[in-house]
Amino acid sequence: MNPLIKDRLMDYLKEDVGFGDLTSNLILEDLEAKAIIIVKEDCIIAGLEEAKSLLELLGCKLKPFFKDGEYVKANSIVAEVRGKAKILLMVERTLLNLLMRMSGVATVTRRAVDLVKDINAKVKVACTRKTLPGFRIFDKRAVEIGGGDTHRLRLDDCILIKDNHLKLLSLELAIKKAKEKVSFTKKIEVEVSNKDEAVKAAKLGADIIMVDNFTPEGIKEVVDELKKLNLRDKVILEASGKINFENIKDYALSGVDVISLGFITHSARAIDFSMELS
Amino acid sequence: MNPLIKDRLMDYLKEDVGFGDLTSNLILEDLEAKAIIIVKEDCIIAGLEEAKSLLELLGCKLKPFFKDGEYVKANSIVAEVRGKAKILLMVERTLLNLLMRMSGVATVTRRAVDLVKDINAKVKVACTRKTLPGFRIFDKRAVEIGGGDTHRLRLDDCILIKDNHLKLLSLELAIKKAKEKVSFTKKIEVEVSNKDEAVKAAKLGADIIMVDNFTPEGIKEVVDELKKLNLRDKVILEASGKINFENIKDYALSGVDVISLGFITHSARAIDFSMELS
Amino acid sequence: MNPLIKDRLMDYLKEDVGFGDLTSNLILEDLEAKAIIIVKEDCIIAGLEEAKSLLELLGCKLKPFFKDGEYVKANSIVAEVRGKAKILLMVERTLLNLLMRMSGVATVTRRAVDLVKDINAKVKVACTRKTLPGFRIFDKRAVEIGGGDTHRLRLDDCILIKDNHLKLLSLELAIKKAKEKVSFTKKIEVEVSNKDEAVKAAKLGADIIMVDNFTPEGIKEVVDELKKLNLRDKVILEASGKINFENIKDYALSGVDVISLGFITHSARAIDFSMELS
Amino acid sequence: MNPLIKDRLMDYLKEDVGFGDLTSNLILEDLEAKAIIIVKEDCIIAGLEEAKSLLELLGCKLKPFFKDGEYVKANSIVAEVRGKAKILLMVERTLLNLLMRMSGVATVTRRAVDLVKDINAKVKVACTRKTLPGFRIFDKRAVEIGGGDTHRLRLDDCILIKDNHLKLLSLELAIKKAKEKVSFTKKIEVEVSNKDEAVKAAKLGADIIMVDNFTPEGIKEVVDELKKLNLRDKVILEASGKINFENIKDYALSGVDVISLGFITHSARAIDFSMELS
Amino acid sequence: MNPLIKDRLMDYLKEDVGFGDLTSNLILEDLEAKAIIIVKEDCIIAGLEEAKSLLELLGCKLKPFFKDGEYVKANSIVAEVRGKAKILLMVERTLLNLLMRMSGVATVTRRAVDLVKDINAKVKVACTRKTLPGFRIFDKRAVEIGGGDTHRLRLDDCILIKDNHLKLLSLELAIKKAKEKVSFTKKIEVEVSNKDEAVKAAKLGADIIMVDNFTPEGIKEVVDELKKLNLRDKVILEASGKINFENIKDYALSGVDVISLGFITHSARAIDFSMELS
Amino acid sequence: MNPLIKDRLMDYLKEDVGFGDLTSNLILEDLEAKAIIIVKEDCIIAGLEEAKSLLELLGCKLKPFFKDGEYVKANSIVAEVRGKAKILLMVERTLLNLLMRMSGVATVTRRAVDLVKDINAKVKVACTRKTLPGFRIFDKRAVEIGGGDTHRLRLDDCILIKDNHLKLLSLELAIKKAKEKVSFTKKIEVEVSNKDEAVKAAKLGADIIMVDNFTPEGIKEVVDELKKLNLRDKVILEASGKINFENIKDYALSGVDVISLGFITHSARAIDFSMELS
Repeated sequence: MNPLIKDRLMDYLKEDVGFGDLTSNLILEDLEAKAIIIVKEDCIIAGLEEAKSLLELLGCKLKPFFKDGEYVKANSIVAEVRGKAKILLMVERTLLNLLMRMSGVATVTRRAVDLVKDINAKVKVACTRKTLPGFRIFDKRAVEIGGGDTHRLRLDDCILIKDNHLKLLSLELAIKKAKEKVSFTKKIEVEVSNKDEAVKAAKLGADIIMVDNFTPEGIKEVVDELKKLNLRDKVILEASGKINFENIKDYALSGVDVISLGFITHSARAIDFSMELS
Repeated sequence: MNPLIKDRLMDYLKEDVGFGDLTSNLILEDLEAKAIIIVKEDCIIAGLEEAKSLLELLGCKLKPFFKDGEYVKANSIVAEVRGKAKILLMVERTLLNLLMRMSGVATVTRRAVDLVKDINAKVKVACTRKTLPGFRIFDKRAVEIGGGDTHRLRLDDCILIKDNHLKLLSLELAIKKAKEKVSFTKKIEVEVSNKDEAVKAAKLGADIIMVDNFTPEGIKEVVDELKKLNLRDKVILEASGKINFENIKDYALSGVDVISLGFITHSARAIDFSMELS
Repeated sequence: MNPLIKDRLMDYLKEDVGFGDLTSNLILEDLEAKAIIIVKEDCIIAGLEEAKSLLELLGCKLKPFFKDGEYVKANSIVAEVRGKAKILLMVERTLLNLLMRMSGVATVTRRAVDLVKDINAKVKVACTRKTLPGFRIFDKRAVEIGGGDTHRLRLDDCILIKDNHLKLLSLELAIKKAKEKVSFTKKIEVEVSNKDEAVKAAKLGADIIMVDNFTPEGIKEVVDELKKLNLRDKVILEASGKINFENIKDYALSGVDVISLGFITHSARAIDFSMELS
Repeated sequence: MNPLIKDRLMDYLKEDVGFGDLTSNLILEDLEAKAIIIVKEDCIIAGLEEAKSLLELLGCKLKPFFKDGEYVKANSIVAEVRGKAKILLMVERTLLNLLMRMSGVATVTRRAVDLVKDINAKVKVACTRKTLPGFRIFDKRAVEIGGGDTHRLRLDDCILIKDNHLKLLSLELAIKKAKEKVSFTKKIEVEVSNKDEAVKAAKLGADIIMVDNFTPEGIKEVVDELKKLNLRDKVILEASGKINFENIKDYALSGVDVISLGFITHSARAIDFSMELS
Repeated sequence: MNPLIKDRLMDYLKEDVGFGDLTSNLILEDLEAKAIIIVKEDCIIAGLEEAKSLLELLGCKLKPFFKDGEYVKANSIVAEVRGKAKILLMVERTLLNLLMRMSGVATVTRRAVDLVKDINAKVKVACTRKTLPGFRIFDKRAVEIGGGDTHRLRLDDCILIKDNHLKLLSLELAIKKAKEKVSFTKKIEVEVSNKDEAVKAAKLGADIIMVDNFTPEGIKEVVDELKKLNLRDKVILEASGKINFENIKDYALSGVDVISLGFITHSARAIDFSMELS
Repeated sequence: MNPLIKDRLMDYLKEDVGFGDLTSNLILEDLEAKAIIIVKEDCIIAGLEEAKSLLELLGCKLKPFFKDGEYVKANSIVAEVRGKAKILLMVERTLLNLLMRMSGVATVTRRAVDLVKDINAKVKVACTRKTLPGFRIFDKRAVEIGGGDTHRLRLDDCILIKDNHLKLLSLELAIKKAKEKVSFTKKIEVEVSNKDEAVKAAKLGADIIMVDNFTPEGIKEVVDELKKLNLRDKVILEASGKINFENIKDYALSGVDVISLGFITHSARAIDFSMELS
């Protein structure tokens, strides 16, 4: 297991347990128990692998009945867990919170992916860095499980020159410095706010161009212009800003390569799960 | 500042920054900058105090124009920040993610609180432990800012005997053991699923009774029965399960003292904020 | 195992071991050994469960011959341990320090509990937050093992309005604010220094009243007054301050519900243990 | 400041504060306050420097009226503290626990040191590794403040071959291996249980010989024998085991260089302190 | 400052200081001192910025007389430091170790960069992940200061399909899966061992091709073939393996874009520095 | 295993892995694999024990074919590893970096030890505190494996009064204070720059005298003078400064007890290792 995941899982548990689970401590020390995890809504399930790791770290076992990424019907039993009753009850909330959040993110991601796929299977749906603080590795994983693209993991990941940067240095200078100072292993992305900037960024050798807050029509114009200049194949076009389930198909039709959505992580509705001892 | 908050804020920043903000490193080392934080939607603002702490930890300054808990109109400038341009850009996403989430939680909490207050100002709206893993201290604080009750902070906080516990030991035994083994400084709460259990729990001396998945009518019956037995004043009644904005007023009318809602933390929609360098 | 306990145990060991146990490193790498843990004084034993956890974290085994909380005679063998000789010798001091301290706290707690029980089995003996820095979870556990009440675990646990707070806000305001701002899951305790304050606190709805530095007679007057006002059953009375083994029976007779003692944690004498390889 | 001390102080505070000081949070955010720290018993004060560091880490100030190691009369004001009222109240318990413990250790150490000094000012009083888990750096510092010797800080500090080691390898082999494998910067100490072993250890080149559980007379015989063999100046003699305030002067007279005492750390009675807001 | 850097610097200091600098503690508590940092060899200096941060974290000051990346003559005073004498002496070794290592890495990197620049200024010199465990952020920074390329920071950075991976899945499948499963923000690099593989990787759309253990002639053949197929501009060519100061110019002439060298981090000779109090 | 080693190993891995090994994640989850570790150069191998621990922490196995400290020929298979393919590939670089560095340090240490042993087997070769930040425990261990002496582990280890200290207090005062204030378990070392100081230090009772930057002849004069004064047996003489493979035999002949070398840790060339899946 990735050692970062282990650390985070234990941090989450410590956050919830503190000095101990007063209620479960009322239960006999050695009592073994079995429980089932039930999902209460249709969803794309995510987090089973992490839930399994969490239980194993505590000397318990989780047997999953689905694989992360599968579509699961409401009221399905998604896993069986076994271990000391005290431990299962102590970990219950952390376990469910993890499944609820990750499945929530995966489900909304999959919905976006499916809408886009209807139009053009080559267009990717990506998330952003608008993840929950302290939970990024799991939010990004849930997006992946949902079929989405994780985009930048961190600020050390790839270059993304945004409007705020461009207030401090010109596009030309920013790209020039990036090419000089930043590793050849990194892509350079530029956020642009109009067609001219998009074309300029492409000419300067940006790898990715984020057309931010463009209409689908505005994007088409960019695409056409880039094609005219023989630059379309040299760049990845990413649409971002004000895209939702109503207009996402229009964006998928606009000719972009990637559609990025903040809400699939920052506002994902949790999926309801419960644990029932038997 | 609470030292735990400081730790968490720095953890969130480290999660996003990694080995460094490659893009902002292109900017002149010593350049000082100023920026404004703008909210894009009407909301109850929350997290300004934490945002201020985060910036101070990095040698920057944040001047808030509102207080946490105030109602703020879309497009308001909520704060001004100053510091090294590189640092402001490095911290931007962490700062905004914090404000977005906390204001999201506070806003949905306030909405519930206001609906309930229309009916009965004495009824409290509480959250649960269904918070985002690793973010509980901030989720609980946002609920508080929204006017809600934080409920149990952790498993070591108060006793809450739930259905899963009752599969392993009887209500009588559970309460008896809790009274013997758990500190007198702790309250004892019991989750019940029907009127008889509610009455029994009250008779056994539970401090709080959670009527879980009851209809408002079902709750009224419990209230009447408790009154009849002269037990109503001895317990706090908490309604929980399947309560939403449609039916919350009915629950507020049912005679309970507290209405607890999982969704105000597990599924809060983020409020949109942005930072603009000037 | 509670993950916090695991962390603490390893921290204690790291504190003692540093770069390695130079002396035990002189011993053959693979040599297996067996040892016994002997207690040198009559005591209430505590910490065996934690000692077992510590050894298991290092791949060794501990077989206890007593249960935490039992009365053990001087020179009893309390446990047998097995594992690599190097590891057993490396962990010896940490293991014994843990047992010595926890048994020390449990033993003095039990002595107080027994004295009180002779008078009134319903009166609880509680510790305070005067625990050893960095050792609270174990100090509180040892009190529990000794038969005592753990009282507040932390400052986020329940409200305790003390004299210092009352210099900054009135009793009325403090309780009013606490009821408004603090979760219904928390009890409100007030420290009072005379009968009038005690009565006032009870009238204002405090859950617990700490009569601080009262004589037993002073407490009796409070009890009588509260009874007269029909408030006695509404509050828990806790006596605190200047209580020792000489006068504790008088306090037990005074009509309080709880007697809290700082010295059972801040000044507990350690019980002598040793480990002997065989 | 030693960075380890900073870490520990913040750990102790986090242990006590958790999600926040619910009671002090009732107090006005910006209220500044002043308080005095009073000692309730005659003592050797210790921990003022650490207390100062703790307050400074929180943006408060402590002005000490004594120096660590001074003899202080009961009811003296030992320091004045200033800062936000909320912060002072939040840190109060951690601050006092630190002073109480460290002054307790320093006071009992000084008492032993003074008794020994009456007999022979060259004989050192040392503590052991029987310190409170997680608190060693402060316990050792308190011993130092009390005039004692800190002895081994950790297992990587110097070689100390004890009875348990000698069950696994002979004294000859142990010392030989130690001389070969362990750095020349480390001293080699051997615990012996009779005169012959003491002489043998001295002949083998041990730097320090711990005569464990010897009577003062037994020690004198060892001293005489070593003198006869011209080895007395080559070794440091440390008496250990069953030494208390009744017999310590006899040990001081026995001819040893060092008297080590476990109880000055494992069983030190705390000194009573309080903080009073003005 | 990047919060990770702060953490690491304090970890390094804690590693060296332990319970305290026994020797410097002999010096008067309040004595202020000034010292100079002298370099003993010609070098490219690196680490001054980090050294400054380290001293500021301890309340001391460092005034640099050079900038990181400058060529400095032997025996130059590179910085002046001021602060409490005890603190300066406590931090001395950590400070110097940092400068010695970082300047060592920067110096050897610059030497390689200069040799390559003589031939072709467009060819980059890169390091690898063969950095010292626990020191990567500083090793990578030192390479950057020396004029080199940092290459992958971590395993989550870009895809690098190596020979070991190709034993488990085919090149086609590896690239296909990478394109499907890995974010569009990541480049895909493939390590190849002959011309055919190189061509195949280029055809499959790899962004970077690492020609591992090729002779300069072998690389030229790859370059020619790629040009013939019109693929040369589509890929970055990285030469790796068995490149040293003797043959690096031949590689620079071979037509590659990047030359990567493990030894500039894994075997950098330290540059000698000293600190002298005045 | 020493818990500090476990922590460090996991820290190193986390440093390299981040959010995950993107490349190895392309490989089938459950695929088991076997690989061999090959050394590419003649060396003294070191780090096998640590490598074994690292793999076991991840649920893999390492079977060593040599023991740490053995001389190994180029192209030998030094170990076989087994486990999940994904995990083996994830840990590969951290594992090899550890072996490369530790074997590099052990090899250069052994070379020095062998040169000295030719002259005088009683003279020890020691390293210094010029280790890589964050890697000290492993650097010191590698020196030990190479046959060297670890010298001071930390600043809390023994007293070493250096030139910078002697600018702030006299040699007499420094040694006097050290004897008074520092534990009898610690040795006192003094760095001297001429014969007179060396003699003075010996007379004052220093345990170790470091003759810094002396010629072999200069050292002989010190030795002769000390013999004349009957002090030679009372002190350990350590030569330090400007000693290299050319002149080390002269120093070994000079009459010192210890020769300390900074370069065996600060500038050790790494030994090349690789891992090959089968």
